[in-house]
Amino acid sequence: MADLTTAIADCVQDVERIMDLLLPNEDDAEARLREAMRYSSLGGGKRLRAFIACQSARLFGVDPRCAVRVGAAIEFMHAYSLVHDDLPAMDDSDTRRGRPSCHVQFDEATAILAGDALQTLAFSVLAEPETHSDAMVRVELMSELAKAAGVQGMAGGQMIDLLAETTEFDIGAITRLQRMKTGEIFGFCAVSGAILGRSGERAYMALHNYAQELGLAFQIADDLLDAVGDEEAVGKPVGQDVTAGKATFVSILGPDRARSQAKLLSEQAIRALDLFDESADLLRDVARYVVERDR
Amino acid sequence: MADLTTAIADCVQDVERIMDLLLPNEDDAEARLREAMRYSSLGGGKRLRAFIACQSARLFGVDPRCAVRVGAAIEFMHAYSLVHDDLPAMDDSDTRRGRPSCHVQFDEATAILAGDALQTLAFSVLAEPETHSDAMVRVELMSELAKAAGVQGMAGGQMIDLLAETTEFDIGAITRLQRMKTGEIFGFCAVSGAILGRSGERAYMALHNYAQELGLAFQIADDLLDAVGDEEAVGKPVGQDVTAGKATFVSILGPDRARSQAKLLSEQAIRALDLFDESADLLRDVARYVVERDR
Repeated sequence: MADLTTAIADCVQDVERIMDLLLPNEDDAEARLREAMRYSSLGGGKRLRAFIACQSARLFGVDPRCAVRVGAAIEFMHAYSLVHDDLPAMDDSDTRRGRPSCHVQFDEATAILAGDALQTLAFSVLAEPETHSDAMVRVELMSELAKAAGVQGMAGGQMIDLLAETTEFDIGAITRLQRMKTGEIFGFCAVSGAILGRSGERAYMALHNYAQELGLAFQIADDLLDAVGDEEAVGKPVGQDVTAGKATFVSILGPDRARSQAKLLSEQAIRALDLFDESADLLRDVARYVVERDR
Repeated sequence: MADLTTAIADCVQDVERIMDLLLPNEDDAEARLREAMRYSSLGGGKRLRAFIACQSARLFGVDPRCAVRVGAAIEFMHAYSLVHDDLPAMDDSDTRRGRPSCHVQFDEATAILAGDALQTLAFSVLAEPETHSDAMVRVELMSELAKAAGVQGMAGGQMIDLLAETTEFDIGAITRLQRMKTGEIFGFCAVSGAILGRSGERAYMALHNYAQELGLAFQIADDLLDAVGDEEAVGKPVGQDVTAGKATFVSILGPDRARSQAKLLSEQAIRALDLFDESADLLRDVARYVVERDR
């Protein structure tokens, strides 16, 4: 997957550059907030979500400068969710990507506000005409991102995830929770190119289905890393789900069945892209990568 | 101000009705999150922000069904900020509007997520075509709300406010902080009708200026209530700024000068509306009301 590694590295550079421009350092009274937002969103992360958005846009010949802004908005949204998830009242994680998490580096109040303002920034970026000349397209992006992030998406999924520590969940309930918690944002990434490129319904649905399978495969791989991964490679503490007594794909299926389930989902994700030619090969590689990664 | 009281009561009804529809109770796994969101946003509050938005829209003959949706979005955004401001790591307030605050009624994690999802919901509501048929108008609403709520607005203002407990602030710094923390959202409320009605620049700026003065007058009145108000009437603990050693308009100016400053700002707000006829009378009454209220 040498091509994928290079392409992701290029995308990381492009996305970081635009995120840096969209969130400048300034010497004002609220500088501490900007600093915490920059700390939590820049200089780290695989940028897998932005990469999927950029690759989706490529399928429809969308201007890469538009796609990378959508990627930046998604990464700001993702960063907000990580900052809040790490808070003591939530998952209580002291480290993130091998560094102190935001509330440890700054303080809890700053971390809460930094997360809040990162979410706002995600919508700001999408609203600007540089993201797409057609207001209709920008509204659709914002509307879909809001759906993916809100009570029926990421935030609702995180709520259920917190309840999973004290509730008995079966595999159906876990699947629904994970579709909400990570799947919906992956779904937005995958269809964002179709929105930008005003594709037809068929291409839109193919990308949507791709993301559904991909998101679950990603999450199972994440659970596996937490259960059997190496702390140094992962860059954050492992074994947290077991300690918390949390129901996950791995706790229910066991590592072996979880691993083959992830592989199956990855194959289904690839099959969902059958109507695209080799221009979708990197998206196919992503589906292979997420279940093979060690961090 | 009998007219104002009646008009506000009508607006409260309309806004509550639409907020209830936009945030339905459902029997799903994330029900707890919806419940916390409803608890924090429905059944309470003066709805002053929504009222200003609806009155602004009236000046331009905007369909009230559109205006009330903008009002609902603003109230969801406002509710999110209150939920997060009340958190132990922030202002640590146990009560709000005479009831337990969200993290007391539920728990901290739920309150963090409820605030997050209320912000998302505010953008969702604005994105929907029912808010305005023209996508350009919807994008402008979302873009302006994001500016008002983000690092250069409400969130940035709250950051500086937290620093005010340990930093020496002069009256200029306090004014800037309060313009950001509450003024920008008031500004959005006031101009939202002009955006919906696609008014000219002059009317837009008049409403913008009105809100700037109004927002500061409102905040000074708020500081006065905290310093010399009655806890039962206010519906939340008073004396918190003094306890926290926080610089406010009242701590710097003293109550008497603060009171006359608020009155002056209220008069300036009214003068900013000179180009409108009596259709703006309720907005003028609002400017009188905010400095005379006891809660």
